Formats: sequence, C-alpha cells, structure tokens
Amino acid sequence: MAEKITPRTEDFPQWYQDVVLQAKLADYSPVKGCMVIRPNGYSIWERIQQEMNRRIKDAGVRNAYFPMFIPESFLTKEAEHVEGFAPEVAVVTYAGGKDLEEKLVVRPTSETIINSMFAKWVQSYRDLPLLINQWANVVRWEMRTRLFLRTTEFLWQEGHTCHSTLEEAEEFTIRMLKMYHEFAENVLAMPVIPGRKSDSEKFAGALRTFTIEAMMQDGKALQAGTSHNLSDNFAKAFETKFLDKDGKQKHVYQTSWGVSTRLIGGMIMTHSDDKGLVLPPMLADTHVVIVPIVPKANLAPAVYEAADKLAAQIKENAAVLGLPYQVRVHVDKDETKQAGWKFHEYELIGIPVRIELGPRDIEKQQAVFTRRDKGVKEFIPLAELPSKIGAELAAMQKELLEKARAHREQNTHDVDSYDAFKSMLEEKGGFYRVPWGLDRDAEAAIKTETKATLRCFLLDESNEPVKTSKPCFKTGKKDGNVIAIFARAY
Amino acid sequence: MAEKITPRTEDFPQWYQDVVLQAKLADYSPVKGCMVIRPNGYSIWERIQQEMNRRIKDAGVRNAYFPMFIPESFLTKEAEHVEGFAPEVAVVTYAGGKDLEEKLVVRPTSETIINSMFAKWVQSYRDLPLLINQWANVVRWEMRTRLFLRTTEFLWQEGHTCHSTLEEAEEFTIRMLKMYHEFAENVLAMPVIPGRKSDSEKFAGALRTFTIEAMMQDGKALQAGTSHNLSDNFAKAFETKFLDKDGKQKHVYQTSWGVSTRLIGGMIMTHSDDKGLVLPPMLADTHVVIVPIVPKANLAPAVYEAADKLAAQIKENAAVLGLPYQVRVHVDKDETKQAGWKFHEYELIGIPVRIELGPRDIEKQQAVFTRRDKGVKEFIPLAELPSKIGAELAAMQKELLEKARAHREQNTHDVDSYDAFKSMLEEKGGFYRVPWGLDRDAEAAIKTETKATLRCFLLDESNEPVKTSKPCFKTGKKDGNVIAIFARAY
Repeated sequence: MAEKITPRTEDFPQWYQDVVLQAKLADYSPVKGCMVIRPNGYSIWERIQQEMNRRIKDAGVRNAYFPMFIPESFLTKEAEHVEGFAPEVAVVTYAGGKDLEEKLVVRPTSETIINSMFAKWVQSYRDLPLLINQWANVVRWEMRTRLFLRTTEFLWQEGHTCHSTLEEAEEFTIRMLKMYHEFAENVLAMPVIPGRKSDSEKFAGALRTFTIEAMMQDGKALQAGTSHNLSDNFAKAFETKFLDKDGKQKHVYQTSWGVSTRLIGGMIMTHSDDKGLVLPPMLADTHVVIVPIVPKANLAPAVYEAADKLAAQIKENAAVLGLPYQVRVHVDKDETKQAGWKFHEYELIGIPVRIELGPRDIEKQQAVFTRRDKGVKEFIPLAELPSKIGAELAAMQKELLEKARAHREQNTHDVDSYDAFKSMLEEKGGFYRVPWGLDRDAEAAIKTETKATLRCFLLDESNEPVKTSKPCFKTGKKDGNVIAIFARAY
Repeated sequence: MAEKITPRTEDFPQWYQDVVLQAKLADYSPVKGCMVIRPNGYSIWERIQQEMNRRIKDAGVRNAYFPMFIPESFLTKEAEHVEGFAPEVAVVTYAGGKDLEEKLVVRPTSETIINSMFAKWVQSYRDLPLLINQWANVVRWEMRTRLFLRTTEFLWQEGHTCHSTLEEAEEFTIRMLKMYHEFAENVLAMPVIPGRKSDSEKFAGALRTFTIEAMMQDGKALQAGTSHNLSDNFAKAFETKFLDKDGKQKHVYQTSWGVSTRLIGGMIMTHSDDKGLVLPPMLADTHVVIVPIVPKANLAPAVYEAADKLAAQIKENAAVLGLPYQVRVHVDKDETKQAGWKFHEYELIGIPVRIELGPRDIEKQQAVFTRRDKGVKEFIPLAELPSKIGAELAAMQKELLEKARAHREQNTHDVDSYDAFKSMLEEKGGFYRVPWGLDRDAEAAIKTETKATLRCFLLDESNEPVKTSKPCFKTGKKDGNVIAIFARAY
C-alpha cells in the first residue's frame, strides 16, 4: 500500500506534495485552487490556534467575528487597497434567487468591513486602544496554487487595532511582529528573520509592512506572517474618528496583522525529510507511540500490559519534567498491521518518539527508543525511559530550531555586487544580504532578471532598516543605503 | 450613557434585541442579514466550541476543513437536497477578473462537497467508520433575520460520518442527539426535548432528522440542534462506496449533525432578564467581579489590597471545590467610573457573581455578595466568601436549568382537541403535546391556521416515536398515532 516519497534532492516540490498527501495532511478538492485540510493537518492548525490565541489574548486583544461578505463599494474606498485586491476577489452576484443590487465580495482580508464597524464603536479616546482579532476563512483567487502555501481559500487570524496616535500604532505593529517571531521559533521551531517590506511588497493600503521570513530546506524564502502599520489610511476612508482629550475629532491610527494555514506548509518544508513529516513536539497530537512486538499471539497479554504500564509512567514522569504540554502516548494494539508497516506509518505522519517493546525486551527490562528526527534506534532500560522521553521531547523541539537556523546561516550570503549575486543565486540559491539603494525600478528589474524578490530590510534596535555605507549592489548609488535580503520565494 | 432595556412583558422581541445590543454581544452589520459577533458574544462561542470539541473528540470524531465553495452541479446530485437549499444559496459567478465556467455556491451545509472527498477516501470496510467534524461559517439567504437566531451567515459545527450499515448510522445519529441533549442542559443550562422531526420538517436529503427543542421565556420553541440519519442518499448520489468483508461493493450509510451560534440566542432567551444577560457560569469569561468601594482616594490602597487578597483566595478555594472550570476573578480598579455605573454594567453583561468591598466592610471582615440571577445582596464574612462563591457558582448553573425546566413544564399542555389547542395557544402560547396522525396536509393546515409547527415526535426508549391509542387531535384518525409537540417557533 505504501507509496514512495520522492527524495528532496530529486524534486523538492514533488517531495513536498508527496509528504502532504501521503501523511494525509491535506488533499486536493474538486474546487479549483481550494484544498481540504484533513484531520492530521487540521490537528496541527488547532495547536497553532491554541498557542497563538494565548499570545493574542495576553496582548489584551479580544476575538470577534465579522461578516465574510463585503459590499463591493467598501473595497473601493481606500485607493491602494482596491488596486491591490480587486484582481483576485471572488464575487457573489446572485443570492436567494435574485441578482443582488450591490455585489458582495468574499473577504480577501477584512480592513474595510471591520472599519465600517469601528467607525460606529469608536467615539472617544476612552474607547481606545481597541484591540480585536478574528479567526476566519479568506479567499484570494490564485492562478497557481500549492497545498497550504498558496490556496484560493485559506484559514487565518487577522488582528485589527485602533490607536490614538501613529506612534502607538507603530509600537503595536512591532509588538505583533515580535509575537510572531517568538511564536515561529518557539512553537514551529522555524527560525525567521523579522524585517520590513519594501514599498512595492507592502500590504495594499498600509503605511508600512513588517514581515517574518523563513528559509525552506531548498533555500527559498517563505513569508510566514505580516504586521502592518495602516496609519490613518482606512480611518480616513471610513471616517473612523474619536473625540480626543483635547476636545478635537481625530482619525484613529490602525494596525492589522495575520498568519495563516501557510505556516503549516512552512513548518513541513523546514523540518521534514524523505521518510515523511517531522513534527516539532509542540504541534503533535500524539508525542509517543509504543509499538508492542508480539511474535506469538499468546504473548500479547504480557506485552500489552507492559506497554500500558510504560505509557502510564511516561505520562506521569513527563508532567514532572515541566514540558509546556501534556505528553500524549498511544499504545498501538492493532493486530491487523505488521510492526514494520507501523514503523513506516508513524515515521510518515511524524510521531516524535517511537518505542518498540517485545517479550525479549521485557525480559531484559529495556525498550527500543527512536526519535523521529534522528532515526537512530537505542536500547534504553525501562526505568530510564520515562525521564529520557521527557528530556528528548524538549531536546527535539530545541534541536529542530537549531538545525534549521544552522541551515539558514549556511545558505545566507553577503554580496556587494550584482554579478556575484546572480551567479551565486543560480548556483546555490539561498538568502543574499546586500547593500540596497531603495530604488523601485531596480527592484523590479532584479525580479525580472533573476526571479528573486526583496524579502525585507533588516531592522536595527529601533526597528528601522539597518543602514550601510556601501554602494547599492544593483545601481551603485552611494548614499542612504540599507541592508536588504533578496531571495527566490514561495 | 445607559440605555433602557425594554421589559420582557412589554415587548419580548425588543427586549431580546436590547439585551444583545446593549450587552455588546452582537451588532448589525452593513451587509443585509449578516451580524457581527462582538467580543462579549464571541467569548461565549469560544466556550461553547471548547466544551463541544471535547465531547466530539471523546466520540472518536476528528476535525477537518473543507472548501466553502461548492460547484453548483454538486448541489443538484441529491434531488431533495437541491430542492431544499437552492432557493437560499448565495452564488459566486465572477472571480479573479473573469466569469466562472461553473458557478460556485457558498456552502449552506457541506454534505455534497464532503461526499466528493469521502468517495475518494473510503475504499474498504477498514476505512469505516469515518468520523469527521468541521467548524465553519455557512450561508443561507434569509429574508427575515434576527441576531444569533437567524442570520444569513452563521458559525456552526457540522459532523459528517460514514458507516457500513444503516443500523450503525442510526445508532450514531442517536448518539449525537444525546450528546447535544447533555450539552444543552449541562453547559447552556437550557432544558431541551429530544425528538424526531416530521417528514415535512426533516433535513433536505435525510432519511430522518432528530432535534433538540428548547422553550424560550415567551413560550415559543427554538430548534437548538439537529442530527440526521442520511441513509445512503448522498452515498448513492456521490458513489461513496466500500468493499465490504463479504467482497461486495456497497454504499456507505451516513449521518450529519450540527449546532450553531443560534445556541447563544437560545441561551439568552432562556435565562436573561430585564436587567440584561444572565450567563450560566460554564460560559462566563469572568465569574466574579470585585468592585472596591472607595469613598475617599486615600483609602484606595487598603481597599485594593483587601480586594486582591480576596480574589486570590477565591481562585484558590474554587479549585478545591472541584468546579469544571478555573474560577476567573476580576478586581475593577477603574477610578473613572462610579460604583453604581459598574453594578449596572456587570448586571448588563451577566457576570455571575458581584462582590462589593468597602472600608467599613473590611473593618467588619465582611463583603456584599450578589448572585446575578437572584439579585439579592447578602453580607458574608470574608472567611466564608471563597467557599460560598464556589458553591454558589455550582448552584447557579444547576438552578438556572431547574428554573428553565419548571417554566417549560408550566407551559407545556396536553390537549386532545384541535379547538382546545387553538384557543389555549392563542391565550397562553407554550408547547402542546397532542395525539398525532402523521398526516402531511393536516400538518400544513395547522401551520397556516395557527402559525404553530410540529416541533417533534416524542421518543420512547428505543428512540421511536411514542405511540398513543388516542385519535389524532386534528383529523380524528383512530389508529397508528404518535405523540407530537406543536408550538410556535423561532
């Protein structure tokens, strides 16, 4: 029954698709560009939601829900916004048996519909800051789609806040950027570079956009989350105003920020291998699977009893070790499947730790321990196993991050000349830190010539682009340059 | 600032709207028929999700996510289904700058799109039962809408399962009905009558539909959840088949079942009063608010210290009492608001327990305790308060259910004649248990003549309609009658 996973070195995109489909994380649907998130994939999304919700609520933000339909006229109120999103919206023109008087856009993002409510709710400085988040589905019509990474419909959270000053809005934009940075590294074990987008890559309607950029195993970049300072652009379009302490009516300053089911794709392409999914323990539904080895049917009761006892000890001990989650253990007593089939299956779906336990192991008071990311079998005394498992789960979470970070460092290059950039990019891909003159035309030319895009400007301690005295690597412009990262991206 | 809530006796629908809007549970949106769920309302939905998810997962069901767009042709594959839903769908005809070749329906429910995937995933009896649930938004174009109770877009969970036999599908349908029954009573404190729908009220495409029916304070019925045995109707339409143990290809038998944000409206109309929301403690974000009474600014530190100490003791003690939730306590130190304003506000938004604590109380080592549903102030020694609060929260959850059940019993009437039914319904509303001859035309006539609908057939121990030897209350038909409930409904 087992299909073969294409090796990464042979065809990376095919490998990715093989892992997603064979580990039953997602599937293609009959609706063009839309995916089905299967239970193995959705459970990862539920863990992401849980962890992210905790952080969002700790920041004082409350969840709410707004309509998914947006009157077409709303979209046009902010000029840059409509230019950015109009080409990719899906439109309801007919409903309840009639043509609609005003067409309804299926939300590609909710700044406009939310501002129509904020304008009603915000009256006074006492109503500020207003901090709202929504978990929702959104639709952006895409020509070329890829499971999790780019789909017509996707799931996300979108935060929307109102503040009384531009400075406070900027501060909150950065706070959410930092929240995403910490989340990506501590939960997904996916190292990211926080930075600022260029004007041509920023959100349609934002003053400025911040991003976290991750490097996949093939050296390509993945934009993993964005945080926008919207200034008063939408507030002016929707007349979202408040009476300030000084008795004056003022427009609010706003932020919006989001991460999506794309994170699952990024996490897969960061850690997984040619045997299937490698899942950071923080995201696992089941952390440990115990596979009883039963050479003869009459030995089953004794082996099962030992396996159950071990499972109980693991759960107990791991609580003591202070992991940030309950350790979930599954004892697989399915007798219709061979042990070899089970090993393959649990590697494919990414269970972090596998324990094999047979009659001879029980005699010797040991079991076989295998960590999914290392794949090395070790014989461990039963008495040591519970504490080893707790320690190894914590280590695995940490080492996945470190390994990915090392990979990124090895594949990040400082270059000062465009020729060097072009030949190195062609030869080995990866990220390029370059002195950059902020020229929009040069940025477009690089994209056309190399398919690399400006991922972000690196940030200094005050969250401004890092300055450099070097000439721009593309135009040679001498002054006022910053450090930018260029890479090919998903 | 405070608006007046219309008393229930004066205008029940207006009272309901006043409570929902003033407690900031929801708001009208600029999109016809669509609501905004505000944070105070959404937090109730999050608790419902959490509690329901636990039950769903305990039943072995796993969450997934399917596209919200359904190709128009899918809807037409099951004849009754398309007849039921076609008039109320919203249709995307234009997307990505082009007219679509095949129009896409925004899901009103997902049996069709899910069956298109089940047909692919289910191959063998080994793949069964397949138990899937989805949390999603759905759209049904409604002419007359009401916040939470009937909106064009709403949030819900929809379970979809496949089984190898009709008996197993029926068993699971009933299991989910019982899960909803238990949930409504233990979480929402809303008593419900489990029953079966008549053929004219069943789900479009189902063999039979089961329902839980609640009575609101005005005596009207609310359908609060449904569970459908779909037989092999959708399996035949989508060729969802499996190879059985006997080597034969067979269609699967299916169920679907759902509850929605409508539950929030039902819960409000079950418990709330003329002062605002009354919330069962299981659904509260904050269980206890402590309002420090500070007659002079220099007394504030001592009062705040005592309030914080009390809050800590409540949290500690309530853990000991074994409540099924963490007790969440808020100490309101906002000095820009008067105590009277705060009392009013916390009554409006339904905090279950309010504690007042001032300098004189501290001297006497007491505090003022008020339970939201009773509204009676009691002076309680500080030492007794923590355990009293734990006990009162548990009691409140229980008593809300009992009170609502008593109200339902008082307003449920056994009648054998149609004339008695008509005059009593007109005079006092409520539920009517009647002998019923299962005649579709008679059912339609009753609806036209009285605006009452057949809510459900009562069930016996084997989950079949309860039989009666009495003649049908409408047609006088003598044999083969069952007990039905008729009522006006939301």
